[in-house]
Parts: sequence; structure tokens; C-alpha cells
Amino acid sequence: MWILIFLICPTSLWTPSVFQMSMMAQNVYIFSGVVCYLLHYEYGYISSKRYAHYYSSKPQPHQFTILVRGIPVSSGSSCSETVERFFTEYYPSTYLSHAVVRRTNELQRLTSDAEKLYRRLVHLKSETKPQQRSRRDGFCGLFGRKVDVLDQYGKKLENLEDNVRMEQLSVAGKEVPAAFVSFKSRLGAAIALHIQQGTNPTEWVTERAPEPQDVHWPFFSSSFTFFSSSFIKRWISKLVVVVACAALTILFLIPVVIVQGLTNLEQLETWFPFLKSILNLTVVSEVITGYLPSLILHLFLSFVPPIMIMLSSMEGCISFSQIEKSACTKMLWFTIWNIFLANTLSGSVLYRFNIFLEPKKIPGILADAVPAQASFFIAYVVTSGWTSLLSSELFRLLPLISSIIKRPFSGKDDDEFEVPSIPYHSDIPKVLFFGLLGITYFFLAPLILPFLLVYCCLGYIIYRNQLLNVYAPKYETGGRFWPTVHNSTIFSLVLMHVIAIGIFGLKKLSLASSLTVPLPILTLLFNEYCRKRFLPIFKDYPVECLIKKDREDQNDPTIAVFYDKLRTAYKDPALMPKRHPRSTDDHNSPLLQAGV
Amino acid sequence: MWILIFLICPTSLWTPSVFQMSMMAQNVYIFSGVVCYLLHYEYGYISSKRYAHYYSSKPQPHQFTILVRGIPVSSGSSCSETVERFFTEYYPSTYLSHAVVRRTNELQRLTSDAEKLYRRLVHLKSETKPQQRSRRDGFCGLFGRKVDVLDQYGKKLENLEDNVRMEQLSVAGKEVPAAFVSFKSRLGAAIALHIQQGTNPTEWVTERAPEPQDVHWPFFSSSFTFFSSSFIKRWISKLVVVVACAALTILFLIPVVIVQGLTNLEQLETWFPFLKSILNLTVVSEVITGYLPSLILHLFLSFVPPIMIMLSSMEGCISFSQIEKSACTKMLWFTIWNIFLANTLSGSVLYRFNIFLEPKKIPGILADAVPAQASFFIAYVVTSGWTSLLSSELFRLLPLISSIIKRPFSGKDDDEFEVPSIPYHSDIPKVLFFGLLGITYFFLAPLILPFLLVYCCLGYIIYRNQLLNVYAPKYETGGRFWPTVHNSTIFSLVLMHVIAIGIFGLKKLSLASSLTVPLPILTLLFNEYCRKRFLPIFKDYPVECLIKKDREDQNDPTIAVFYDKLRTAYKDPALMPKRHPRSTDDHNSPLLQAGV
Repeated sequence: MWILIFLICPTSLWTPSVFQMSMMAQNVYIFSGVVCYLLHYEYGYISSKRYAHYYSSKPQPHQFTILVRGIPVSSGSSCSETVERFFTEYYPSTYLSHAVVRRTNELQRLTSDAEKLYRRLVHLKSETKPQQRSRRDGFCGLFGRKVDVLDQYGKKLENLEDNVRMEQLSVAGKEVPAAFVSFKSRLGAAIALHIQQGTNPTEWVTERAPEPQDVHWPFFSSSFTFFSSSFIKRWISKLVVVVACAALTILFLIPVVIVQGLTNLEQLETWFPFLKSILNLTVVSEVITGYLPSLILHLFLSFVPPIMIMLSSMEGCISFSQIEKSACTKMLWFTIWNIFLANTLSGSVLYRFNIFLEPKKIPGILADAVPAQASFFIAYVVTSGWTSLLSSELFRLLPLISSIIKRPFSGKDDDEFEVPSIPYHSDIPKVLFFGLLGITYFFLAPLILPFLLVYCCLGYIIYRNQLLNVYAPKYETGGRFWPTVHNSTIFSLVLMHVIAIGIFGLKKLSLASSLTVPLPILTLLFNEYCRKRFLPIFKDYPVECLIKKDREDQNDPTIAVFYDKLRTAYKDPALMPKRHPRSTDDHNSPLLQAGV
Repeated sequence: MWILIFLICPTSLWTPSVFQMSMMAQNVYIFSGVVCYLLHYEYGYISSKRYAHYYSSKPQPHQFTILVRGIPVSSGSSCSETVERFFTEYYPSTYLSHAVVRRTNELQRLTSDAEKLYRRLVHLKSETKPQQRSRRDGFCGLFGRKVDVLDQYGKKLENLEDNVRMEQLSVAGKEVPAAFVSFKSRLGAAIALHIQQGTNPTEWVTERAPEPQDVHWPFFSSSFTFFSSSFIKRWISKLVVVVACAALTILFLIPVVIVQGLTNLEQLETWFPFLKSILNLTVVSEVITGYLPSLILHLFLSFVPPIMIMLSSMEGCISFSQIEKSACTKMLWFTIWNIFLANTLSGSVLYRFNIFLEPKKIPGILADAVPAQASFFIAYVVTSGWTSLLSSELFRLLPLISSIIKRPFSGKDDDEFEVPSIPYHSDIPKVLFFGLLGITYFFLAPLILPFLLVYCCLGYIIYRNQLLNVYAPKYETGGRFWPTVHNSTIFSLVLMHVIAIGIFGLKKLSLASSLTVPLPILTLLFNEYCRKRFLPIFKDYPVECLIKKDREDQNDPTIAVFYDKLRTAYKDPALMPKRHPRSTDDHNSPLLQAGV
């Protein structure tokens, strides 16, 4: 709703007097005030929604559980014993159970192999006739004696099962010094979460547990265990990720420009001489010179979200939700830098880092470059905004194509179709970037606003439909993405103010320029106020809520059942029992026993 | 100890090869490494001391108490009822009692008046003979009838007593929405402290309670109540204080320089023509032109610590310890800016703020200016460092003079002599400033180091003596000033690196210059690591400590007595009963009844 209003608002302010530049300072003030009011209203509204969501929620495992990292395991005892001893000593009345994290990457590999083999076996059994079931072993199935394929697969599966059992026995020793600790009440979990546990602040580090299905198990199990184990390693990995991400963001355009430069016609002709005749056709050459560079840019861009996800998961995030949230912020900065700044400032200016050491010159440079790119961004809204909404969101063309290609090879049945979840990390930055365009160009080129308005209306309808009818959420965000939206809008406002100061400076309107100077400061103060007033709500729930919900539970007869579920909620799925009935007459015992 | 080592260390590094500037980069690295190692060691050592101090402490009221601000008082009930209801509902098992803060400034004024009058009465009774006790009333005691002075004072005292009683009745209604809430266990207090209480993060804001004798009662009672009441007002007052403090720090030298300029000989002669003959004497004129400007600077400087204390108390700090800690940081920045930077950079460069908008130029400017001032700072160490240690610390000349002057007028007896407490806010910045000089000049002018060494040795002996034999601590700091010392040393290191980069740049040693660039980054990373590893220890005590101490208490038979004391520990001293026996035959009832 606020997006709509701030788009409509400036157009109504766009009276002829605006052409007197000195009046513009006033308009910038009014516009910023309206945006800030809407931001404040919306922050409050989403906070209340967040509380309402919490109050209406049933008891859920992640509300009662925390993740403890940096467990100081003494040489004599296991990690599990240490955790048990610590929490029974210090939380005797509220401690319920714990699940130590184990390195299960080997087990995971084996189980997924067994899974695949079993699926192929079932497929074979149902589809092929008995006489087709045998084939020759040996080279390419051409030589050697005839064997029953079913038998062969059955033996392989048995072998795998043995390996899985062996691995399950050994996995008990592969403890990671991290554990999910569950409590009998929400308040108990909150206490353990908020108060430093041990005398060394880098041990017994606690954090909120994600929902059980949201835990990023491969993180714990894979070689990244390295990063999850000790505080200092985790901190270093975070630093490395920040540096890598900054380098990727800043230097991304350099290889892209180089590759784009390589794809001119002459270059292509020397590389692929057989294409010479086709390339000489005017239509083809026009298409190639016109679209190839843009296609290469888009190809490179499409690799970025997965890279950001990978970087975020290396950072030490333990759940998909955290990874997506972190990747979302990274993508936002990436988009602003590589699409907004790289297009407005020419590349050469952008990569003369000196300008960032002379902050005084930044407003002037921006004011010089930004208005010139107005028409480009209007085109961008149409080509990238509208098109991506329709093609990729509404019709989901890419997933369709990839599923058509993948289907025959995956061996999955139709009923195993996974409902997609919304990719917050790539969609939110996209939407926010159009917000940034609207805010920065509202007084430079108001022509962009109708296009953005269409984008917002389309987006509202399409995303509403997608969220209600297409996507299934992998986890409950609980409004945790709103602070990102808020911060991005504040950044857009400050950027707009800097550009305005620069423009007033360029036009020698020093009064208007200095009148605008307090505005970014006021906006940042407003942001600071919002951080104090609302941000804590998005991080934690207060004692009031926790105790009210805890008291509700006490009267709930099903709470004992819930506690039982809670005890096993945070078990690595690799250790879960899986049933693979080999045939109807086979014994129906679980293939994989529940792990330790 | 580390101060000594880092002073001795560079002198041993000061081999002839240092004169090859490219070797200096290496020395800077080694020196920074040694300082960081010592900082790390000392941080760990003081952390362990802090825990030891906590473990050995008896149960103390501030360990069981928190201060709650921003209490949302509903119209129907009083603040006290609201607090009682909230904490009995949410902390039924640990909540003990509370004391709502009241506006007692009027009462305080009346009680202190009564106190003074009573003291004068006692003084009169003991010292004057009965016939001297009468004097004439009326103008200057010359006209009118003779009255007994004792009777007159007695009547005045009675009047005051009546007023005090009236005020005590009305003070019950003057509630401030803030209260000290005490719990039965340390863990209970910690829980209420760390977890957000209400759904609105700006209500029920909790903070650690100071020791009872450390509470700055005038803060609550005076008009500054304005600032303590609501979150937003407190925040604004904090902002205002930050701006005021920054303005004072930055602009301090301007009036000083102007006043110094006014005190040249001609100016003085026109103002005070009668001094002409004296001023014409060569000795006098030399002394005046030599010392008057410096005297004026010192006079102005001596006003700064009280101003900083005032600013800090306006900031919303509720205890002397917090005020002093905050003022200490402010004084540190003030000293660095006004003594180090204002002396090295000439005033004109310092107040061309443009240079701070061009960070690239800062190393060059510093490298140009800092080495030139080496001899000035060597003299400064001797004149200001040694002298202030001996004159003001050891002999306490100023307090001696002021007490000689004040004694006859104050009417206090000798047995009312107050043991002084150490003024952390003015002494710590002074010592840290000499640390900064040592670090920045160690490779520019190693001649300063022996002088600083003498200062450190003298300081160690003198401060040890003062702390053990002279000062009585007003409150337990619990090592809370160490992070300030640590941060200041880190700042000194980074400043030194910036100067080194600048100097290598000036001497066209670009390799040495770029070799030094990673050093400030590494130092800041080290600081960040220390913040994570040690800083939490200086803020809170972990669950482990709290529960161990709580369990000790459970076996302590005196704990019930302590709880009784705790209930009344945080009562405004203005509401405490005070006994003023008017004479031996007077009824011995308390003058001021205990407040509500």
C-alpha cells in the first residue's frame, strides 16, 4: 500500500512551480516525510501482525529449542554427556532434552544412493516384463552370462544397506561440538538464549533454533563443520565471506565486460569459421550485436543468486531461512552496485576507487550521471521489470523448461513433484531495486513513475496469486524480511538526498543545496528511532508473550504428546528410519534403523 | 606492566638499521604485535580478576536489583501498583519488592536547609556564651527588639520541619515512571534484565541497578526527570548531549585563542591603567607574556571535566559510576583533539573541516605535522605529566588550597571530613594520553620514551599509594574502565599506523607505505576479536556465575536479613529518617519520618 502512495504522491506534487529548482528542496522534504510516515506506519503494522502470528501459533519445536555451539568438550567425556550435565545442572526445572549434531555426510551419501537404487528397482518391477529383466553383464551388456537385473539391483541394495548400518554405528563417534537443546517452556529457551552461559563468551554460544524442516543439515555434516566448530573459525569464515562477497560485487562487471568484448562479429568468425555464412546475414548479425552482450550479462547475472546462497551458507548460517535472508541482503547490494551505479556512473569512474576516498565529490558525480540515465531506467523497468514479472514469475518459464529437460532423466514419478518455494533472496532485491528507482528518479524524471506504478500493480496481483496458489513456504518468515525492506528504502531516500544536494550544487543553488543537507541526517535519525522502536520486535519475543503462551500450554492436554515429538524433532534426517519394502512379500522392516 | 614493556621494547628495537626507512615498516609491525599481545594478555587477566571479585563478593543489593524505566502507567492506577502487578504476574517466584522513584527535589532542598540550620544551631549552642545568643532583629541587627538567636533558629527549624512533613505527604503523588525492582535471586534479576519485557520495546526498559550509594538521586528528582521519563525524550537528550559534547570538543580552542589574544601587554594596559608601572618591569612583562596564555588555557581546561560530568548526567545516566565512565570517554576524545591534534596540526588546518572530507590526505597532513612537534610533547610530558603527578596527585595542592579557603565558611566540623574518591574521569584520560604519545612517537622521536618511562614509574608509585592510602572508592568499578583503556590503545596504534603510512608516502617509500596499509586493518580485526572474546565479560555475568552464587546464598543463614535490607536499599535518601536531637533534653524522635 505504501509503495502505491509514494508513487502517486510525487506526481501530484509535480506542479509547474517545481521547475523553479529552489522549490524542489521543499518537495524533497515533503516526499521524504511522506515516505518516512508510511515506513513508520508499515513497521508498526507488520510488528502487530508478527505478534498476532505468534499468539495464534500452536506449540512448535523451534519455540522451545535453542542451538548451542562451541561446547567445551572435556577429554574424558562425550559432547552429549557434557551438554546433558551442563543443562541439568543449570536448568534443572526447564531442561527437556538435547540432540547433538553429528557429521553424517557419508551416511547421507549412502542413504541417498540406497534411495535411488530402490526407486529404480521399483520402477523396473512395475514397468518391465519378467523376460526383459535379465541382461548380459560385462562390457556394455554385450558379453558375459545372462543375469537377472532385479537380482543384481537387490544385491547392490543389500550391500548398501550393510554399509549404511556400518556407518550408523560409526556416526555416533562423529560428534560436532554443537547441539539442539530443548526446554519445557518458551521462557526457559529464551533465558538460555539471552544470557551468556559460560564464563568464556566464546563457549556455549546460543542462538535461536530454526524450524526443524528449515535446518540446513548439510552445513553441519559436510566439511563446513570446520566453520561451525569453534568461535574463531566461524568468525574467520564470516570475514572471508564478507570479503569474497564484496569482491564479487565490486569486480563482477570486469569479466562480464571482457567477455562481452570478445563476442563481436569478427571474433566469432575467427573462432567458429563454419558460422561465417550465417553471421553474414544482416538479421543474424543485428540480433547478435544487439542481444548477445545483454544475453551474456543476463547469463552471468543468473549465476549470482546461487553464488550468494553458497557464500551465505559458508558464513555459518544453520538454516535455509538465515541463508536466504543473508543472501537477500547481499543480492540487494549487488543489484544496487552493478545495475544502478555501474549504469549511471560509467565503468571507468566506478573503478577509480579514489572517488570513494573523497566523499565530498560524490554528490556532484552522482548528480552529473544519474539524470542522464533516466531513459535507460525507464526502459529497464519495462524490459526487466514487466517482462520478468510476466515471464519468470507468472508463467515460470525457466522452471518449466528445466523440468521438461530434467524429467526423463531424474526417474522421479509425477506424484513426487515438489511444490516450489518463493526465492526470497532473488525476488525481494528485485522489487526493492524498483523502489529505489522510484525514489531516486521521482523528481529527476517523473516519467518513470507511471511505469513503476504499472509494475507495482502487476506485481501486487501476480505475487498475491503466486503466494496464495503456487508457492508453498518452506518456513515461516514471521515478517523477518521487513527490516531489510525498511533499510533499503531508507538507503534509497538518503541516496536521493545526496543526488538532490549534488544537483542543487551543480545548478549553483547553494541555498537549496544547504537546505537539503539536514534531510539525510534527519532520515538517518528516523531510521535510528525505528531501530530502537521496532527492530527488537523482529528479533525476539518479550517475556509477556512467552509467559502467556506458556500458560496456555499448561492447560493444553496435548502438551505431553508435543514434548515427545519435541525430543526427536531435531534429529538429522539421515538418521531417521526409512522404510523400503522391497516387494509386497518382503519383510516390512525398516531399512535404516533410527540412529543413536 | 604492559605499559612498561611497550615503552622499553621499542628502545631495544631502535637499532641503527632503523634509519633505513624501509626497515621501519617491520619495526612498526613488531611493535604493534607486541602491544596487541600485551593488550590481549591484560584483557584476559582483568577478566579473570573481575570474575574472582564477583565470586568473592557477599550478596549485595545491586546484584539482585534492576532499574525499570518507561513504565506504562494506566490512568486508573499508580505507578507502584502497575509495577507490583506486572512483576508478580510474570515473575511470581523470584520477585521480591520494588521502590518507585519519586520527584524529591523540593524535599531535598528543604531537608538540606534543615540540616544546615541544625548544624548552625549546634555550633551556636556549643561555642557561644548565653549572653551572646541574643541580637537585635530588624535591619542589619541594628534596630528592633532584642531576641534570642537560639529561639529564632529553633522556630525556623520547626517551620522547616512542618514544610518537610507537608512535602513528604505530597511527594507520594510525585511518581516518576521508573522503579528499582529487586528479586530473590541474581538469576531472576538477570532474566528481567536481558529479555525484553513488554510488547513495546520502548516500555519496561530494564537496566542494571547501580550500588545503592552510587545512585545519582538528583537526576531522578530534578527537572531532568523530563529526560528519564519517556524513551523518546531520553533518546533526544542523549543526541543533544552528543552534539553539545562534539561542539565543545571541536570548538573549545576558538574562545581560548581569542581570550589569549586579548591578554597581550597593550591590551592589559588599556584595561587596567593602574597596572602600567608594574607591567613595564621586564620581569613582570616576561612572566605575563610567557605564562598568561598558558595559564588561561589551563584555567579553561580545568572547567572541562565538570562540564563533561554535567553533560553526562544530562544524558540519562543514573549513577555516578556511569556518569564518570561516560565523562571519561568524552574527556579522552577532548584531550586527544585539543592537545594532540590542535598542537600538531596548526589551528587553521584543524578547522578547515574540508580535510576530514578527504580522508586520503589525512596521513600526509599528519606525517607532515606530527614529527615537528616532538620536542613540544617531550616538554609536555615533563611539565604537564611529571608536574601534575607530583603537585596535583601526590600533594593534592588544589584540594588543600580549596579546603583551607572553604573550611571557615562551611561550618563543618573536622570529623565531617569527606575522604576523597579518585576522579576517574579526569585521571584516566590523562594517563591514556601519555600512552598515546608513547605509541605515536616511538619511531618518530624515541627520545620521548625515557621521559614517559619516568612518568610511568612515578605514576605507578604515586597512584598505588593514592589508591591504597588516600582515596576511598565511592563505588566498585569491577574493572569496567578497562575496555576504555583498551580502545584508547587500539586507537593510538591505528593513529600511529596512519602517521607511518603518511611518512613513508612523504619519503617516496611506496613499498614500505603499502606494506603498512594492512596493519591498521589487522589491528582493527584484533580489536573486533577482543570485543567478542572479552567485552561481554565486562557487561554481564554468565548463568554459571549467577547460579553458583545463588546456590551459595541458599545455604547462607543470613540471607533473610539481607532480603529485609534489600527491600529498603533503594530508597531515596531524602525520604530516609534523619535524627536531629535539638538538645539532650529534647524529645529524641526522628525529625524526618521515613517516606512512603
